[in-house]
Amino acid sequence: MSYFEQFMQANQAYVALHGQLNLPIKPKTRVAIVTCMDSRLHVAQALGLALGDAHILRNAGGRVTDDMIRSLVISQQQMGTREIVVLHHTDCGAQTFQNEEFQEHLKTELGVDVSGQDFLPFQDVEESVREDMQLLRECLLIPDDVVISGAVYDVDTGSMREVY
Amino acid sequence: MSYFEQFMQANQAYVALHGQLNLPIKPKTRVAIVTCMDSRLHVAQALGLALGDAHILRNAGGRVTDDMIRSLVISQQQMGTREIVVLHHTDCGAQTFQNEEFQEHLKTELGVDVSGQDFLPFQDVEESVREDMQLLRECLLIPDDVVISGAVYDVDTGSMREVY
Repeated sequence: MSYFEQFMQANQAYVALHGQLNLPIKPKTRVAIVTCMDSRLHVAQALGLALGDAHILRNAGGRVTDDMIRSLVISQQQMGTREIVVLHHTDCGAQTFQNEEFQEHLKTELGVDVSGQDFLPFQDVEESVREDMQLLRECLLIPDDVVISGAVYDVDTGSMREVY
Repeated sequence: MSYFEQFMQANQAYVALHGQLNLPIKPKTRVAIVTCMDSRLHVAQALGLALGDAHILRNAGGRVTDDMIRSLVISQQQMGTREIVVLHHTDCGAQTFQNEEFQEHLKTELGVDVSGQDFLPFQDVEESVREDMQLLRECLLIPDDVVISGAVYDVDTGSMREVY
């Protein structure tokens, strides 16, 4: 049985708990959370979010990319969010490699030349949060009155600390 | 109090439940889930995922973009995942607009010219899952033996149905 089949089975149990809801498409808190794909971070639980509360955007590292901006613009302009939280975490996969060696690996392993592509690794997790908050502040597509906060999540303890 | 402050407070309660864990950086199931930022979808609960089980990647629509590929390549090549689930959902924000009107809106509202940019809206949610599964199958950076599945999540009932 593939994991997909296991997820489909687990989902049947979830449906019974879920019941029929008719939550609005616009998030109740008007917040969008930008964070990492890491498996040790369950965003809704860690931040106390109920169903319908906030948009959750996740990529490798929780980095502010063009696609993240695309998503945030839709979140804000179509669905009314007005606050962004950038949440990176300890022991991140984005800290496990550097661009050049990773490009070399992909050429050897997959035969694909991705030289020049930035996979957005980082060394210092507080610095990466600050960088991404700054990118959001400078972005012309994000209105100036949007509230932007940042934090680091500790994958061992589940705790968040704010980044200024 | 901003919502960020509320999330920080809720997180304090979560820390007590979390306890000290030392889960490995590599996801246990070796699965990466590609899905939407929608607030009505809590991925871990809906699929029965424990902490540490799977990477969760989310953007507007759950679309396979360059940034999604960047994240999946890191997920697979650095963290060992070998299965991808594409999970879109009913009543998606990506079904609420079309590119040209949205570009016009951004020009009027924010004074920014984004003509030509594809914000990746779609009409038919099963079709969008198939399109994105196909993009993954054709992508040279995703090995051929990676298992790719697709499903649609119903935001009213919490149920998933497979897309073939």
